[in-house]
Amino acid sequence: MATKIWQKKESSNQEHASIVEQFTVGNDIIFDYKLAKYDVQGSLAHCEMLNSIGLLTNEEWLVIQKELKNIATEIENGNFEIEAGIEDVHSQVEHLLIQRIGDIGKKIHSGRSRNDQVLTDLKLYFKAEISAIVSLTETLFNTLIQLSNQHKDILLPGYTHLQIAMPSSFGLWFGAYAESLIDDLELFLAAHNIVNKNPLGSGAGYGTSFPLNRTLTTKLLGFKTLNVNAVYAQMTRGKSEKAIAMALATMAGTLSKFAFDMCLYLNQNFGFISFPDSLTTGSSIMPHKKNPDVFEIMRAKCNRIQAVPNELILVTNNLPSGYHRDVQLTKEILFPAIISLKECLEMFDFMLAHIQIKPEIVKDEKYKYMFSVENVNQQVLEGIAFRDAYKNIGLAIENNTFEPNYNVQHSHEGSIGNLRNDLIVENFKEVKSRFI
Amino acid sequence: MATKIWQKKESSNQEHASIVEQFTVGNDIIFDYKLAKYDVQGSLAHCEMLNSIGLLTNEEWLVIQKELKNIATEIENGNFEIEAGIEDVHSQVEHLLIQRIGDIGKKIHSGRSRNDQVLTDLKLYFKAEISAIVSLTETLFNTLIQLSNQHKDILLPGYTHLQIAMPSSFGLWFGAYAESLIDDLELFLAAHNIVNKNPLGSGAGYGTSFPLNRTLTTKLLGFKTLNVNAVYAQMTRGKSEKAIAMALATMAGTLSKFAFDMCLYLNQNFGFISFPDSLTTGSSIMPHKKNPDVFEIMRAKCNRIQAVPNELILVTNNLPSGYHRDVQLTKEILFPAIISLKECLEMFDFMLAHIQIKPEIVKDEKYKYMFSVENVNQQVLEGIAFRDAYKNIGLAIENNTFEPNYNVQHSHEGSIGNLRNDLIVENFKEVKSRFI
Amino acid sequence: MATKIWQKKESSNQEHASIVEQFTVGNDIIFDYKLAKYDVQGSLAHCEMLNSIGLLTNEEWLVIQKELKNIATEIENGNFEIEAGIEDVHSQVEHLLIQRIGDIGKKIHSGRSRNDQVLTDLKLYFKAEISAIVSLTETLFNTLIQLSNQHKDILLPGYTHLQIAMPSSFGLWFGAYAESLIDDLELFLAAHNIVNKNPLGSGAGYGTSFPLNRTLTTKLLGFKTLNVNAVYAQMTRGKSEKAIAMALATMAGTLSKFAFDMCLYLNQNFGFISFPDSLTTGSSIMPHKKNPDVFEIMRAKCNRIQAVPNELILVTNNLPSGYHRDVQLTKEILFPAIISLKECLEMFDFMLAHIQIKPEIVKDEKYKYMFSVENVNQQVLEGIAFRDAYKNIGLAIENNTFEPNYNVQHSHEGSIGNLRNDLIVENFKEVKSRFI
Amino acid sequence: MATKIWQKKESSNQEHASIVEQFTVGNDIIFDYKLAKYDVQGSLAHCEMLNSIGLLTNEEWLVIQKELKNIATEIENGNFEIEAGIEDVHSQVEHLLIQRIGDIGKKIHSGRSRNDQVLTDLKLYFKAEISAIVSLTETLFNTLIQLSNQHKDILLPGYTHLQIAMPSSFGLWFGAYAESLIDDLELFLAAHNIVNKNPLGSGAGYGTSFPLNRTLTTKLLGFKTLNVNAVYAQMTRGKSEKAIAMALATMAGTLSKFAFDMCLYLNQNFGFISFPDSLTTGSSIMPHKKNPDVFEIMRAKCNRIQAVPNELILVTNNLPSGYHRDVQLTKEILFPAIISLKECLEMFDFMLAHIQIKPEIVKDEKYKYMFSVENVNQQVLEGIAFRDAYKNIGLAIENNTFEPNYNVQHSHEGSIGNLRNDLIVENFKEVKSRFI
Repeated sequence: MATKIWQKKESSNQEHASIVEQFTVGNDIIFDYKLAKYDVQGSLAHCEMLNSIGLLTNEEWLVIQKELKNIATEIENGNFEIEAGIEDVHSQVEHLLIQRIGDIGKKIHSGRSRNDQVLTDLKLYFKAEISAIVSLTETLFNTLIQLSNQHKDILLPGYTHLQIAMPSSFGLWFGAYAESLIDDLELFLAAHNIVNKNPLGSGAGYGTSFPLNRTLTTKLLGFKTLNVNAVYAQMTRGKSEKAIAMALATMAGTLSKFAFDMCLYLNQNFGFISFPDSLTTGSSIMPHKKNPDVFEIMRAKCNRIQAVPNELILVTNNLPSGYHRDVQLTKEILFPAIISLKECLEMFDFMLAHIQIKPEIVKDEKYKYMFSVENVNQQVLEGIAFRDAYKNIGLAIENNTFEPNYNVQHSHEGSIGNLRNDLIVENFKEVKSRFI
Repeated sequence: MATKIWQKKESSNQEHASIVEQFTVGNDIIFDYKLAKYDVQGSLAHCEMLNSIGLLTNEEWLVIQKELKNIATEIENGNFEIEAGIEDVHSQVEHLLIQRIGDIGKKIHSGRSRNDQVLTDLKLYFKAEISAIVSLTETLFNTLIQLSNQHKDILLPGYTHLQIAMPSSFGLWFGAYAESLIDDLELFLAAHNIVNKNPLGSGAGYGTSFPLNRTLTTKLLGFKTLNVNAVYAQMTRGKSEKAIAMALATMAGTLSKFAFDMCLYLNQNFGFISFPDSLTTGSSIMPHKKNPDVFEIMRAKCNRIQAVPNELILVTNNLPSGYHRDVQLTKEILFPAIISLKECLEMFDFMLAHIQIKPEIVKDEKYKYMFSVENVNQQVLEGIAFRDAYKNIGLAIENNTFEPNYNVQHSHEGSIGNLRNDLIVENFKEVKSRFI
Repeated sequence: MATKIWQKKESSNQEHASIVEQFTVGNDIIFDYKLAKYDVQGSLAHCEMLNSIGLLTNEEWLVIQKELKNIATEIENGNFEIEAGIEDVHSQVEHLLIQRIGDIGKKIHSGRSRNDQVLTDLKLYFKAEISAIVSLTETLFNTLIQLSNQHKDILLPGYTHLQIAMPSSFGLWFGAYAESLIDDLELFLAAHNIVNKNPLGSGAGYGTSFPLNRTLTTKLLGFKTLNVNAVYAQMTRGKSEKAIAMALATMAGTLSKFAFDMCLYLNQNFGFISFPDSLTTGSSIMPHKKNPDVFEIMRAKCNRIQAVPNELILVTNNLPSGYHRDVQLTKEILFPAIISLKECLEMFDFMLAHIQIKPEIVKDEKYKYMFSVENVNQQVLEGIAFRDAYKNIGLAIENNTFEPNYNVQHSHEGSIGNLRNDLIVENFKEVKSRFI
Repeated sequence: MATKIWQKKESSNQEHASIVEQFTVGNDIIFDYKLAKYDVQGSLAHCEMLNSIGLLTNEEWLVIQKELKNIATEIENGNFEIEAGIEDVHSQVEHLLIQRIGDIGKKIHSGRSRNDQVLTDLKLYFKAEISAIVSLTETLFNTLIQLSNQHKDILLPGYTHLQIAMPSSFGLWFGAYAESLIDDLELFLAAHNIVNKNPLGSGAGYGTSFPLNRTLTTKLLGFKTLNVNAVYAQMTRGKSEKAIAMALATMAGTLSKFAFDMCLYLNQNFGFISFPDSLTTGSSIMPHKKNPDVFEIMRAKCNRIQAVPNELILVTNNLPSGYHRDVQLTKEILFPAIISLKECLEMFDFMLAHIQIKPEIVKDEKYKYMFSVENVNQQVLEGIAFRDAYKNIGLAIENNTFEPNYNVQHSHEGSIGNLRNDLIVENFKEVKSRFI
């Protein structure tokens, strides 16, 4: 059984305690390592504030500060471990401190509860992860824009109802997914704004009688503002996680669709793209076979991520206000999803670096009638009423006199001939600039 | 069977067509009424643009404009009906136009597809609904802040693990839900930004050869910018809906939790609040019984709303790019959820106008030890180490000499004695100001 | 406001009551019509039992019985209406009874609560619906088996990873979905067994002091056994619904996948099947276009059905034991899903009656290497080690000397040459026979 | 990079292959250990069958059989490891075999694909896990029945709408959850029936040209029947998992509700039950505090399990027929959920062994009117019409002359005075007997 710092005496029944501990803690500690860095950061701010209101002397604060910075360095260097018998990351940091600087170490918990401490750690961690995701998104976005520009003249069949419908292009296709990432960032921005608020000082959800200066810790920790109300600060546990999960799910939806397109376009009946043998799984007796394992697994991972908001809702829903330990499980639900989306973003970018585009796709006989709309529109532009032009071309097709015009001339914003990737890039920068 | 405008000849098999129509259209038309107003608005912008690029003469444009405005008035006045045999709202508007102004009416479909038309209608509708929700949210927010200020001195037990833990107050409780609404608006802002982009001109998802001026329609329709890429514009179908659903779900989560609190606090074992008999369901042989039907149904409605993002994901997921008719079902999933959340917001505000607060709750013997933390903190503030102060009070309780101090003195931001509702109000205004 | 039979006096505030009623009842009454028939059936059994224990005289019982049967006939004939101002179907039946036979009518509520009454209605309704679904499933199953037998010799490419992999056949394809329905029935059987238990007599969830004979009503209503424990009987509200929803979702999963196959096989790049023009949506300028609207809408409907278990869980989860009005919403979630699945089953059967199979699909060059596995296996059967045979064929392909053998000779159970549809039919009958 | 047995040459690009492998395999191997035992079992049956059809000589079969049994023993004893560089459990077993018995080992893959091999392993594993869950369920069921019998005379308030409503008892409460487990088993039975079918011999989903005897392997592996159709056999991947997940979710729903009751009843405002200090988390300055961490974590775990069907649906939905690697992820979704439910079942049983029941709960003043229904019913049984009796008691309460009768006399099946736990036990045995 872990020795809990806040326990005044040994549990009366060691065996029971051990069973309970094993069941309740589970593998929560694995995820606590992600929080170590932020736990120290939170403690530094808390102690500086305690010093400012006279609850730590200047001397105490200097001793604590020095040792917390030592621990921060150890964490940075990978020399930090949550020891067997220590319940969580918060206890481990406190344990190290007391071990090294004695009774002064005990003072850092004044005016703080485990609840607002973990809330603070989480919000700092989430801010950092959102920032990392925005950065990976930008990389993928740039790759997509570059591919869109590079292949803007190669036509692709466009489908509606999965039926051959109209000419599209690789320029449009890559550009569409680039633009999709912009809207995905709106959700991350919402999540960022939700977690960019300081919960420190809200105690166990009802504040404390210590005369804390929460405005100071807000500034020290770099939060934009406070979770003002102590009861609300506690309510953000689970709620922040859901907001992030919704952002993850939204972007995962984009990547999943893109992965689906990849699987379909790699299929031999479509055959629009290819990848080197080293990135697909082949078969020497079926030379055309290129199993898109990466995209299937990516699609599955992204679809799993899309289930995460619902998982979090189920765990946290229908509970009255106030802390319930149920929220502990949000860590093991959300953290792996964050990691998974980051991996998918990186992997997609890696794969795109090797994509091979088939030229001349649309010259195949089966795509011929896709160009009939062009002929109709051409007649309309020449002054013929739409319904009449439509009938004319229909007749030409029926009489086998139809000739497709492969020289597609689209000129409006966002069309084959005028992708306006410059505007898409501008819009990306605009949303990114709002992450403050 | 509905006569489809785009059909050149009667279906070869009327009975089949009728079966197919019944199955595929279902009750989609019910929801189309919501879009009528926006369909006309979209057509007006589209035609003004067609005129600007010479595809409609000035004369034609004036005739069309006048009649579309007439139809708009009819819709406004409730005199608009989708006739039996007309497939959808778009066809009905076009049908009326042709009926009244003849062949000129047929010209409005040039350079437009049903796909970008419905996308435009939806985005305009969603913008309006989000705006309505923000407004209802503000009303509820103000009520909560007012109640928080009014009852700020009435203490309430604060629970952790559903165990009596620390003093809280009605000021904190009401204020917490007010602040919760602020973060909920962040999600609506994300949804607003996602739908505030013009899809008109993207055709069936691959643009068109007409030299449309999409920048002009963007300005005319009041969108902030364009869904630039035509393929992406089509992808926003389903995606906009998911973003809105996530916002609805987030706010529904807040209301559901609040409704749960209400049910619990109305329970006789808690008994913190009450409502007039006219708002609860009683029983004359159980005089204390006050069934909180409104809050149970509200909780259930809000929990159902929380299921909507997942419903939409299931319907739209794992489909390659390009239009699929599956997306039609998003209307019957999302529209009722929008209406339901608005009703819940209004109903909550109505109920809060009649809430009755029990005074002196915390004087009950069972809440006595809740004040022990105050005594510990008092000793700490007097210079005693936390762990020692804790032991002292523990001992006093064991020896039955503990006396609770009901005069709770919390002073930090967001605590019982310093709610900082002013800051919460300021934060509300700040997020609201970002809806542009 | 509805006059509630159990209300001893008018509400003190009519306007409030009306607002509350509108919010809480919503459109619940629409679904109550489905229960009318079963409500009368439950009342008949309850009254016969009350007579058997002396709480109704023989005379009273005869009067009540006669009038309930009249009402049953009216329901059967569509002459039953829930009047404005009557709260629900139970009140309407009781209202009619009292109107027609006076005070005796009031006696039928002895020993019964609205809670066990609606539970009984629901279980009878669910049993009937499950039975109807089993019957529709059998129709579709028979169609699939017939199609499988009919087209057993027509080869189809088999895909893995959506890559051309091995020869399959229409016999296998149709037969697979037939067999899938068998496993789907296992879930319906579970649901059937769960709802085939009598909750009548459990009162509001805590039983009653009346000496009811629940074994008698169990027999009269045709339930297999009782929901014995009164507290558990109440818990089955929501739980029965979830079990049915899981069965619906499972079968919807089968139909959704089948609909996806249809959309893919109708796609011109695949082009394995077709349907008459009257069942697809075409375009005269794109003659090959056959939009599979029916299958897209079916897929979407089935995917929505797959979201229903989660919706029900969200509404009913994290509530302590005992009735909560939240469960009312399960009706508006589940009932439409039942209706929707039945429609999809019928529509699928209708569409299959018109499916057109393309012959000679696999002779296309791109499917050539699919037969290479056959050649490898042939060598193995001739005594060559698998890995060596594999190399031989690989070499032949490399050297362009490979000749596919289209005469696929599969003989084991469940393979192209030996579908064993007889065994599949037998298995269907076996699971069907367990619905007792 | 793992060396894949089926790879004829080294990948052309080691680094790529390594990145792909890491991304696609992920931590799948962790879960493969669960399958090792069943993989050997499947191989034994497959080889005995190959021998029976002449594809293995008697000698070869004896050599293979002996070594597979050795490997089985190593697995049993925990001496089995999937080596670095080996892709999965199937490859590891084959690798060991070839290492130890040479080329003969290569022959076991004849007529088998990785797809039907893993399907077989999974079905055998799932059967075993379902059986283990049934057994743990029986243990918990027996504990509940024993507690129900033991405390059958201790009254408990019964709530509706979370309002004090009617007398209940610990006998009813414990018995209700016992009976709930019976219905939960119906879902496990459905899952059992679905997985109790032999997929071996279905190859990669399209059968094989080898003259396999699938009926023989069905018998050898103890499956009840076959997944007959090879295409359907492949479709059961994901589908079996969903069926099991639905069963897990259903039982998790029962445990979650029970855990919620526990948290509520442990709350000091209710205070119906208690647990020893060693099983709750206390506080010496709040002596009444008994944090129900075990039940909160249990509730959260069970709520997470309820999200699993939806997760699996999202990963496997909207994919056409045929294998897709997406299904690999079902292992990491489902396996931990199986383990988690088993832990919860065990933990619940452990906790119940220490539950402490408060006597005399209902004598508290606030429960007084709960007994008024009894008085009404008493009058009815004495011949007074219900509505009149109701008025009489209402009046007595109004006049303060009401005296509760604590001597509750319920006699019907499933009521406080006649729990009929014997019938519940019988029903449990009946459903258990259907697992064949």
